[in-house]
Amino acid sequence: MDREIYLDNSATTKPYDEVIEFVNHISSNVYGNPSSLHIKGIEAERMVKNARGIIAKSLGVSRDEIYFTSGGTEANNLAVAGYLYANPRKGKHIMTTKIEHPSVMEVFNNLSQCGYDVDFIDVDKNGVVLVDDIREKINEETALISVIYINNETGAVQPINEIAKIKNSINRDIVLHVDAVQAYGKIKIAPQKEGIDILTMSSHKIHGPKGVGALYAKRDIKLKPIIFGGGQESQLRSGTENVSGICGFGAAVDITFRSIEESAVHCENLKNMLLDMLKKEVEDAVIISPEGSSPYILNVSFPNVRAEVLLHHLETKNIFVSTGAACSSRKQVLSHVLRAMGIKPEIIEGAIRFSFSAFNTQEDIIRTVEAIKDILPKIRIKRGGRR
Amino acid sequence: MDREIYLDNSATTKPYDEVIEFVNHISSNVYGNPSSLHIKGIEAERMVKNARGIIAKSLGVSRDEIYFTSGGTEANNLAVAGYLYANPRKGKHIMTTKIEHPSVMEVFNNLSQCGYDVDFIDVDKNGVVLVDDIREKINEETALISVIYINNETGAVQPINEIAKIKNSINRDIVLHVDAVQAYGKIKIAPQKEGIDILTMSSHKIHGPKGVGALYAKRDIKLKPIIFGGGQESQLRSGTENVSGICGFGAAVDITFRSIEESAVHCENLKNMLLDMLKKEVEDAVIISPEGSSPYILNVSFPNVRAEVLLHHLETKNIFVSTGAACSSRKQVLSHVLRAMGIKPEIIEGAIRFSFSAFNTQEDIIRTVEAIKDILPKIRIKRGGRR
Repeated sequence: MDREIYLDNSATTKPYDEVIEFVNHISSNVYGNPSSLHIKGIEAERMVKNARGIIAKSLGVSRDEIYFTSGGTEANNLAVAGYLYANPRKGKHIMTTKIEHPSVMEVFNNLSQCGYDVDFIDVDKNGVVLVDDIREKINEETALISVIYINNETGAVQPINEIAKIKNSINRDIVLHVDAVQAYGKIKIAPQKEGIDILTMSSHKIHGPKGVGALYAKRDIKLKPIIFGGGQESQLRSGTENVSGICGFGAAVDITFRSIEESAVHCENLKNMLLDMLKKEVEDAVIISPEGSSPYILNVSFPNVRAEVLLHHLETKNIFVSTGAACSSRKQVLSHVLRAMGIKPEIIEGAIRFSFSAFNTQEDIIRTVEAIKDILPKIRIKRGGRR
Repeated sequence: MDREIYLDNSATTKPYDEVIEFVNHISSNVYGNPSSLHIKGIEAERMVKNARGIIAKSLGVSRDEIYFTSGGTEANNLAVAGYLYANPRKGKHIMTTKIEHPSVMEVFNNLSQCGYDVDFIDVDKNGVVLVDDIREKINEETALISVIYINNETGAVQPINEIAKIKNSINRDIVLHVDAVQAYGKIKIAPQKEGIDILTMSSHKIHGPKGVGALYAKRDIKLKPIIFGGGQESQLRSGTENVSGICGFGAAVDITFRSIEESAVHCENLKNMLLDMLKKEVEDAVIISPEGSSPYILNVSFPNVRAEVLLHHLETKNIFVSTGAACSSRKQVLSHVLRAMGIKPEIIEGAIRFSFSAFNTQEDIIRTVEAIKDILPKIRIKRGGRR
């Protein structure tokens, strides 16, 4: 069979070889519990500290502002719920967008049942949140605004800086949380300059191990744990540290940031190549990802095609893509993100997300377009009995 | 330097070589997101399912009764808080013991601030919970009882079966949660026969990777998530599955259960050997672990010695032990477990926990006793200026 073409890098990535080796090394040699008083504990703690430093440096923040979690989902939960639990008097109004990942969306849904007044802000046809709506909805009770940096389905980049400025011009006390799972390691993020108070990161989206994430929280932000116990992670996240996973995350960040611009240019080129070829060679393809979206994501709909059918045909050719988001455990529902953009159901049904990494090549793109052109005629739905 | 002697296996264990290799293999080859629809997702899901099956089998329960978490701490939190949140009408009285791990203790402390009436049941001088107190305290509002199976500091085995019978004789509706982090893989546990409704397990205590745990919850027990998102783990625990970690846990369980009895006998022999030698050769040693305690744990106090000083002297000889519990991130407080047993502070101050694994040898014990005998005279505190 042809070489594997993995274009589902927004769902998860293949860990770097160096990451796997390092995880291996740590598991074998630095197996102590960081809470242990002896040298095996100290060594493990030192390795965790080192990884924490790498991540802090990548954001230009202090090491003590970085907290490790079991992943992006836990970090998003901790950011939103942890801030509100710790600050019950800051107000009962919270805002997010209609295009969040479920790990933010569901926390907001849960909070709406716990006495919080929740606004889910609309997006425009490009999938970009309506900043004016955020401005209008801010009131004296507003405690927190949570916005995804780069949407995982379309790659639409959200105007984080603008949102930060707006909320600061009205009330600096409102906390801005940013889910940067699809942005961290792909664009440079400087939380302090950008006015971000809390930021969520994930390891396995940037060739690190699964089961690890991190939260940046500005030093003066008070958070309450959502998991209680031995008081690890400066009392914020209890549980024996996933030392090898954390080290693997650190290694992945280290490698990723060494060539963050080059990778973005590389992926942008592949994305544009795919975009141009599809526009030219698949005439009815509908490009969903907006102008200026992430170089790492291209969402395209093939009308009169069921995306899942196309996906399975592609996999027989060893090409792996996604239909909408892969993060929500196989729910057979139409993407809430694409619906929020006002896209018609029949277009959503045909939507495929191609997501790139530095490991993809031009040949991958050529083979993928060829495959799509080969498959489409076989799977097009003939509506009303006619072509 | 002499070969390393690791006697801190209750804090964490060295992963089996086979586990490390398997984690390595999965990270390299089965890197898909289990939520992805294509074969790389299906493969990853299949591996998770396989690990789930291994754990279910080890308890004699169904695969759909096992949920993966990021570790024992999260599993304990999910068990207790998740049950109460899902069953707000079952009553507002909950019980646990005075010798729980912080990951249970702190959840109860938190719940006591959220409208729950909490009883922390006393233990006897052997560190065994007073079953009669549990019986007496059960009332119409009692919703849940949480008891550690084997205490992590003393190895004292709690009368789980008896507690289950008592609560069933009064009200079968009361849920029994058991923190089996120090018991799972060391003794055989049959939740259904023993009347355990929810059971917490951890991977890194049985030579699996850190950052993974599991919960058994009887099929008819309703739990509410504490982490929300994509709905993984049958809606109970969102977040992309830590596939390689889960697979490593499965492999560790597989290996551990193949020789669960042999390992217990091996460790019991080492424990008895250490016990006998210390009794004979260190005349004032105070044995804290009670008769019939876990073969894997021996807690001994050396009066007029600061345990931490002994620990650091032992580590210079490449011998690693613990003072009390290593799980609570270096808190410089006297063990709550030993205090609950009524042990005097000056004895608690000298308490060392030796914890064993199948990898320890008789030579380890001999060298450890020699080292202690060598160190003690140098570090004994001379009270009142006299010997």
